Amino acid sequence: MANSEQTDSPRIGLDLPAKTGMSVEDVQTPALIIDLDLFEQNVNRMREYAGQAGIHLRAHSKTHKSVDIARYQINQGGAIGICCQKVSEAEVMVNGGIKDILVSNQVTDPYKIRCLAKLCRRARILVCVDDIANIAELSKAACEFATVIECLVEINCGADRCGVDPGEPAVELAEAIAHLPGLKFTGLQAYQGAAQHIVDFVQRKASIDRAVEMVSRTLQLLASAGIECEIVSGAGTGSYPFETESGVYTELQCGSYIFMDGHYKTIQDRDRVPVSEFRNALFVVTSIISVAAEGRAICDAGLKAHSIDSGMPQIRGRNELQYIKATDEHGVIADQENCLSLNDRLVLIPGHCDPTCNLYDWYAGVRNGKVETLWPVSARGRLL
Amino acid sequence: MANSEQTDSPRIGLDLPAKTGMSVEDVQTPALIIDLDLFEQNVNRMREYAGQAGIHLRAHSKTHKSVDIARYQINQGGAIGICCQKVSEAEVMVNGGIKDILVSNQVTDPYKIRCLAKLCRRARILVCVDDIANIAELSKAACEFATVIECLVEINCGADRCGVDPGEPAVELAEAIAHLPGLKFTGLQAYQGAAQHIVDFVQRKASIDRAVEMVSRTLQLLASAGIECEIVSGAGTGSYPFETESGVYTELQCGSYIFMDGHYKTIQDRDRVPVSEFRNALFVVTSIISVAAEGRAICDAGLKAHSIDSGMPQIRGRNELQYIKATDEHGVIADQENCLSLNDRLVLIPGHCDPTCNLYDWYAGVRNGKVETLWPVSARGRLL
Repeated sequence: MANSEQTDSPRIGLDLPAKTGMSVEDVQTPALIIDLDLFEQNVNRMREYAGQAGIHLRAHSKTHKSVDIARYQINQGGAIGICCQKVSEAEVMVNGGIKDILVSNQVTDPYKIRCLAKLCRRARILVCVDDIANIAELSKAACEFATVIECLVEINCGADRCGVDPGEPAVELAEAIAHLPGLKFTGLQAYQGAAQHIVDFVQRKASIDRAVEMVSRTLQLLASAGIECEIVSGAGTGSYPFETESGVYTELQCGSYIFMDGHYKTIQDRDRVPVSEFRNALFVVTSIISVAAEGRAICDAGLKAHSIDSGMPQIRGRNELQYIKATDEHGVIADQENCLSLNDRLVLIPGHCDPTCNLYDWYAGVRNGKVETLWPVSARGRLL
Repeated sequence: MANSEQTDSPRIGLDLPAKTGMSVEDVQTPALIIDLDLFEQNVNRMREYAGQAGIHLRAHSKTHKSVDIARYQINQGGAIGICCQKVSEAEVMVNGGIKDILVSNQVTDPYKIRCLAKLCRRARILVCVDDIANIAELSKAACEFATVIECLVEINCGADRCGVDPGEPAVELAEAIAHLPGLKFTGLQAYQGAAQHIVDFVQRKASIDRAVEMVSRTLQLLASAGIECEIVSGAGTGSYPFETESGVYTELQCGSYIFMDGHYKTIQDRDRVPVSEFRNALFVVTSIISVAAEGRAICDAGLKAHSIDSGMPQIRGRNELQYIKATDEHGVIADQENCLSLNDRLVLIPGHCDPTCNLYDWYAGVRNGKVETLWPVSARGRLL
């Protein structure tokens, strides 16, 4: 895995936690670390799964926001392309040479629609839609820039976020797209985000079974109307075997599989055992900065170093310790045996990987105890 | 209020949500907006308070991470200097011309200690300490760089985070500092962070009364030992009148007063009325991207656009709407009357300002409906 040119820095500084070749023990903390062996295992496992199942993998880049990782997923990881959530992320990825991108979200603002249309001249861009007025605006922009915007009609298959109802409303929107210049109806977006983190296997599967039924019904109506549906896209790391086995999905949008996180590792298989095909490969390394009190140590990673929206981080390999509270720049570690000393390091498994990665400018990729690569979080803070 | 040179951009782009002179309605969303009139009122009010009370204000820059705002607090806001939480933040502030900085935190890593010592050659730098081995390392670095590091002994006055116990342990550390070359014992850090957000006035005041008692006892012991204590620093936006009235604190470290946030606006005065001297001046502007469902609209600001660690954001001036759920890039708005349309804008009051600001690269300062200034979040992501 080669370093990208822009990232092979000779220095370390207060804006850069590491340099390539240094020991992981010398990385400045808090820092975002990828265990490259485990990351590559995760990527390989998903490539093999998708290859054997005969389903396309369109890896979701919202997890990592990294051009380097997106390239790796395409070049080594079996991905046909990527997903982005924002036009601004897609711009970064197109600039980085990615050629096939689904913006798995609604793009409704006039300025952003024009940016999207411009990107369509440089790469294959698909976008999700759920509104009749929106597709008229997309059509205008596509015509202005003499391009074609490919549309996936998003159906609400249980996440209760964006999307029209499955069935007739989806078919009506597909027909409207087919009649507008500059647009192409390419398929359906049917992501059941609310199912991904359901811990119980039976409930999680039932949630996807309902989504599959909605997709199937919509596909039948599209066929009856003579509308071709090239793509059905959906699935996440928590549910992808169900969508794959359904036979109606053509693309998996998994993102978290490359890193996993504290919450994803709690979801169970049919034997009520935590799902094990992917391993935690993303960590926040933190240092102890205060041991002044009995039973408590303070580390340098707080709310600005990891996201606690899905719970507190776990501490890798240290079951006797517990991360119990995060303030802006501090973490409180319960250390009943007072075993921690100043400058000791802990390896945190973030509760939720996506918003944690978005806090950092760099990934330090580590193998055999050494920093092998530095990757910028290229689309960090790209919100538009 | 002049723009800083580096920020007066002629363009708008997918990496920059606004340009100066544009209508706030044209700002790309999600964006971080400062209401400049309200911000200036907040700054003025704190300047007047500190001036009348005869207490120093050392404004905490962890709230905003902006060199421009730090300069404004010093030049127009009555601040004698600022606080930072990290050495990397202090570096940004020294580079921006700030001359008096308290790193209100422990700096224990050898590399960071050297960076701190180097900064002491360019500005007055104070740092908090709570460990005897740590001060020996600070002393070595100060001698190596032929400078003096000023130390505040941090006492744990109820926050149960960093800090030695008040009384004898603090005095012992102060004496040790006084005997080490390159160090100066300048005073005490006595910040009761756990008190700041206690809603009930009586409980909040009682919490600070206990801290004041701990500080007073420590000051008496220091005086008995013949150790001069120039500074007692502490207090936040939720408690500063108590520390001021105590007569033992010499500095206020308030940060959030410039912006306020959803949670700070819930704390009450002695009449059980929300504290009213500062007004919400920081907002996240978001747009509606989906209205496909009855009773629900989806906006473009999720977990990556504001921090929910202190609760969901409020929606300014729209009591009929409620922000009920945040996913990575989406917010779910309960809209029972279906009054929202595509591309409608909402103004969110973040639940917690500090980690929200850290998500953005720019502030758009707004007055009379126009973008008057763009300020970079200069120390965003500075975690080291």
